[in-house]
Amino acid sequence: MKNYDEQFDFRDERNLSMCMDFYELTMSQCYFNSKDRDKIVSFDLFYRRNPDHGGYTVFAGLEEIIGFIQNLHFRDEDIAYLRSLGTFSESFLDYLRHFIFTGDIYAIKEGTPVFPYEPLIRVRAKQIEAQILETALLLIINHQTLIATKAKRIVKAAQGRAVMEFGARRAHNFDAANYGARAAYIGGVAGTATTYAGQKFHIPVMGTMAHSFIQSFDSEYDAFLAYAKTYPNACTVLLDTYDTLRSGLPNAIRIAKEYLEPNGHHLAGVRIDSGDMAYLSKQIRKILDENDMESTNIVVSNSLDEYLITSLIQQGAKINSMGVGENLVCSKSAPVFGGVYKLSSVFENGKMIPKIKISENIEKVTNPGFKNLYRLYDKSSNKAVADLMTLYDELIDPNQDLTIYHQMNSWKNKTLSGGTYEMKDLLEPIFVGGKLVYDVPTLEQIRAYSEMEFSKIWDEVLRFEYPQVYYVDLSKQLLDLKLSMLEDVKHEA
Amino acid sequence: MKNYDEQFDFRDERNLSMCMDFYELTMSQCYFNSKDRDKIVSFDLFYRRNPDHGGYTVFAGLEEIIGFIQNLHFRDEDIAYLRSLGTFSESFLDYLRHFIFTGDIYAIKEGTPVFPYEPLIRVRAKQIEAQILETALLLIINHQTLIATKAKRIVKAAQGRAVMEFGARRAHNFDAANYGARAAYIGGVAGTATTYAGQKFHIPVMGTMAHSFIQSFDSEYDAFLAYAKTYPNACTVLLDTYDTLRSGLPNAIRIAKEYLEPNGHHLAGVRIDSGDMAYLSKQIRKILDENDMESTNIVVSNSLDEYLITSLIQQGAKINSMGVGENLVCSKSAPVFGGVYKLSSVFENGKMIPKIKISENIEKVTNPGFKNLYRLYDKSSNKAVADLMTLYDELIDPNQDLTIYHQMNSWKNKTLSGGTYEMKDLLEPIFVGGKLVYDVPTLEQIRAYSEMEFSKIWDEVLRFEYPQVYYVDLSKQLLDLKLSMLEDVKHEA
Repeated sequence: MKNYDEQFDFRDERNLSMCMDFYELTMSQCYFNSKDRDKIVSFDLFYRRNPDHGGYTVFAGLEEIIGFIQNLHFRDEDIAYLRSLGTFSESFLDYLRHFIFTGDIYAIKEGTPVFPYEPLIRVRAKQIEAQILETALLLIINHQTLIATKAKRIVKAAQGRAVMEFGARRAHNFDAANYGARAAYIGGVAGTATTYAGQKFHIPVMGTMAHSFIQSFDSEYDAFLAYAKTYPNACTVLLDTYDTLRSGLPNAIRIAKEYLEPNGHHLAGVRIDSGDMAYLSKQIRKILDENDMESTNIVVSNSLDEYLITSLIQQGAKINSMGVGENLVCSKSAPVFGGVYKLSSVFENGKMIPKIKISENIEKVTNPGFKNLYRLYDKSSNKAVADLMTLYDELIDPNQDLTIYHQMNSWKNKTLSGGTYEMKDLLEPIFVGGKLVYDVPTLEQIRAYSEMEFSKIWDEVLRFEYPQVYYVDLSKQLLDLKLSMLEDVKHEA
Repeated sequence: MKNYDEQFDFRDERNLSMCMDFYELTMSQCYFNSKDRDKIVSFDLFYRRNPDHGGYTVFAGLEEIIGFIQNLHFRDEDIAYLRSLGTFSESFLDYLRHFIFTGDIYAIKEGTPVFPYEPLIRVRAKQIEAQILETALLLIINHQTLIATKAKRIVKAAQGRAVMEFGARRAHNFDAANYGARAAYIGGVAGTATTYAGQKFHIPVMGTMAHSFIQSFDSEYDAFLAYAKTYPNACTVLLDTYDTLRSGLPNAIRIAKEYLEPNGHHLAGVRIDSGDMAYLSKQIRKILDENDMESTNIVVSNSLDEYLITSLIQQGAKINSMGVGENLVCSKSAPVFGGVYKLSSVFENGKMIPKIKISENIEKVTNPGFKNLYRLYDKSSNKAVADLMTLYDELIDPNQDLTIYHQMNSWKNKTLSGGTYEMKDLLEPIFVGGKLVYDVPTLEQIRAYSEMEFSKIWDEVLRFEYPQVYYVDLSKQLLDLKLSMLEDVKHEA
């Protein structure tokens, strides 16, 4: 672990404090004008559905949020712009000019497997401060969590074969390319093609050649030879510019036999970027092996996603590693992660007043109150059995029996016997009183932690087709509170 | 028009020069090591399919590209990082340290309706320079063009009602929110909720209140009143926190009658964010009108896209304006724009040697050679009838008959009679010899230009369902070249 201040390089050079929905400011001015402008409130950031109808999500983006909050302030030019809109009073603008975040943020660690409805981030702060964070928290989490989750799915499908992220050209602009590469690395890819992400986040970078490289030479052979001469120890050539089996592969073998092997090297790999990858990879493997080139890897890259990779492996395709582009970096099949940020309570004279958002759509009813979140592990299997939300001041003794409840129905419950389970508090303190208290882990630590946590999730939750729904349950006290608040609303209406 | 140097504020504060696929660098080092490292080549940036099965695309992103290229350089820390990889020679690193772009870039103006296969950007430069631009050009165009196109579709569906972009929280990180708002404005939205985009790009910003605002007060009425007091001239309230028709609307009317109207104001608007928008908007309009509140607008915002908006209007929904989120800023239904960057020629001793990329998939065969691109307008209707690609040195006299050809089949052609058509060269010089020669238009100018150019496109091309395919044809000379190159390849194989 290293302290935030020791690793300045992940803090964004830009001041993005103004990147917020304008209503955060219009609302804030109303709070500012109200008699209790410094009222403390709490918000939960959560989501309702896993991407791609999956059983899990990989939480990512916290480090970028820390950088954002550390840098959160309004400069003179920002105030001047806001003044120009004619919407804000001088006293409110002056307040903004001196704005800093002074609240508390608790969050789940990056890389953790997470599930619908549980608070990924819990903010407790003055209402203006909590409001002003909303857009940035959501857009960072909604992006990085989406891509980390997609990467995890793709890496899982690859069953140990290396997956390389190389989608920058199709990303939704620079941040999506760079932070997308970071999130993909948390999800388990072996490296990225995006050089900036390699530099900024210390991710391995990889890359070889494009079709245009080969075309720009007089012949494919000349292109391969030029590449082999420059990179004799890392020569992977692209086979499909003219004809994979009739031109690319023979030229690749010729380069190996005529140049690389006589000079003590070998051909590191061949890449196929079009055509039937099952058929071609098997043919290529056979021909390479007949030429004593067992150590030459086959790399494929053509519109891969978790389903195509699964299918290729089932067909016995001979693939050592693969590059994945738009289906990963844009999460093309599920391009929107629906994280939301909802008020859970207001504090009055130190007392927590729970708040609930109702909706005709039962899925959209929120869990009220300032809450804690625990993961419960079965001691004998060391597997996670459920996550549990409680009110913040509940005490749970894992030596006692514990009954946990479905989020809406008290008849749907489950009892864990005292002594058979362990509990982990999932919400870590990140900022307390505006001060960063979290030792930010390195990306490698996050990756390793993620892998370890995923090893504690049942395979049935992780499968792609009809995954088992992981329990995210409530304590009795929290369920009772929620149901009574819903009754109250009904009586009022 | 204003010169680039006069509007520094759109230049990105970051140095993103390193945001490129690593293979641009590995290839470049091979070029650097080859005997003709400064060989001039040309690349076309084009795409193959309009998003959402549409008939058109809105070109956007050029200004961001200009900023990128103006700032393109490698700093000492970038060189140090590249050195640390052990892949590059000191002489190549030294070359990069002094790298600047010295080539020519021609591009279509932002906001122009564009069509598959035509060059949107044409680069002619030393091969290393052309290669090093690839990733940034693609990711900028692939993002902004996608969002501008989606915005155009949504704005078209709204039939004159104002559309507001407010998807930042679901965007793929900050750039996607900010540049997405810019692109959406080119596509015709009336404003954005993203404050940073308002500040940076001079787009109107808008926003009112969230559900949490209302919940944080003791009652909905108190919340509305606080908002009305702060914004008496621009008071739009959110109706659906508790119950749209039974609570939100009566409280809104009460605020209007008890506070706003007695003080000489009126209720600017009401917003509905859930429920059946056709039914609710008609009910609300009726009740507002019965209360002499004809000037109060109805704003809706719930998972809108071009199809839902079309349906609401067909149902007679009473909507004055609408906010669109993830379906716009992520282009959820079609989240990837497939722009590609392909070698079209190399220049040897001043002679252009055309290059073609073949593929078993006929759609993936490129148009060879260094080319020009024209739009042909019918003089009597003032409508665009086709775009025409020619070789760069062809001369066309619009007083002569002109036969234009399908991109693959010479029997599919069309003849325009001399004197009946006008031609416009679509590729504008942007950089010549590395120097910016383009007067960068303001965003307002781009919007106005886009609207004007779209007025010259037949409605049949613009419709959503089975649009007419706009002709993008070749000159006889270019088609003959292409077909003969394909024959040559066939004979070689």
